[in-house]
Amino acid sequence: MSKKLSIGNSASITHSFTEEEVIQYAKLSTDKNPIHLDAEYAATTQFKQRIVHGMLVGSLFSALVGQHLPGEGSIYMTQNLNFKAPVYLDTEIPASVEITSIHEKKPIVILSCHCIDSEGKTLITGEAVMYVPWLRKSS
Amino acid sequence: MSKKLSIGNSASITHSFTEEEVIQYAKLSTDKNPIHLDAEYAATTQFKQRIVHGMLVGSLFSALVGQHLPGEGSIYMTQNLNFKAPVYLDTEIPASVEITSIHEKKPIVILSCHCIDSEGKTLITGEAVMYVPWLRKSS
Repeated sequence: MSKKLSIGNSASITHSFTEEEVIQYAKLSTDKNPIHLDAEYAATTQFKQRIVHGMLVGSLFSALVGQHLPGEGSIYMTQNLNFKAPVYLDTEIPASVEITSIHEKKPIVILSCHCIDSEGKTLITGEAVMYVPWLRKSS
Repeated sequence: MSKKLSIGNSASITHSFTEEEVIQYAKLSTDKNPIHLDAEYAATTQFKQRIVHGMLVGSLFSALVGQHLPGEGSIYMTQNLNFKAPVYLDTEIPASVEITSIHEKKPIVILSCHCIDSEGKTLITGEAVMYVPWLRKSS
């Protein structure tokens, strides 16, 4: 906590979402769209198989900013997510955030967000804006 | 499915997130920030008590667009979320989406997103952009 932050700092985690996790998230979010839950239905769609809820994959950014960069004590102001390609179950998804901007006067940090698969395909892009109380205290 | 869409169409759901749900989401997202899980720690923060993960509350919009408006078969392109005020556990949170724009040529619909509490306080604002395949078929 209270760590120094610089433009270019980055953090990443990798996660593979299982069927059980997708089912749990469907219950939690109340989003029971069959594209996520019903293999037969999903086979009839453009994706040909079930996909992970985009907002569940986006949760990895919440984990990154809340625990790693800026980390504990920072407060979410904004999360923007662009879903560029489907995320399939049981597939390793690397998620990363990188500080692109630190406000000159306010304790606010902007991070770019990416999920790019092992073949270099961009799955999700986004941007997070974080309020970072310890920047205020140290100024 | 394949329903007609018009600007001004809206849908809403209300949900109250329990401690158990917050714990489950912390596991799913790997976001175990103590502001969500540790009452003693949360008491020392500006919020004075535990808050629900913003991205978990934002999941209600995923449920709305995926199941209600535009509904099943529509595909998430973008979800933007602005976290304006904390959401506390065991508090009824109404979430709503409203169609603000329908693309003239492409099968794309834009919806505004809001969580406004029973006292009229805005908790979350946002915007969802959805790809709606059945608009393409009917044009």
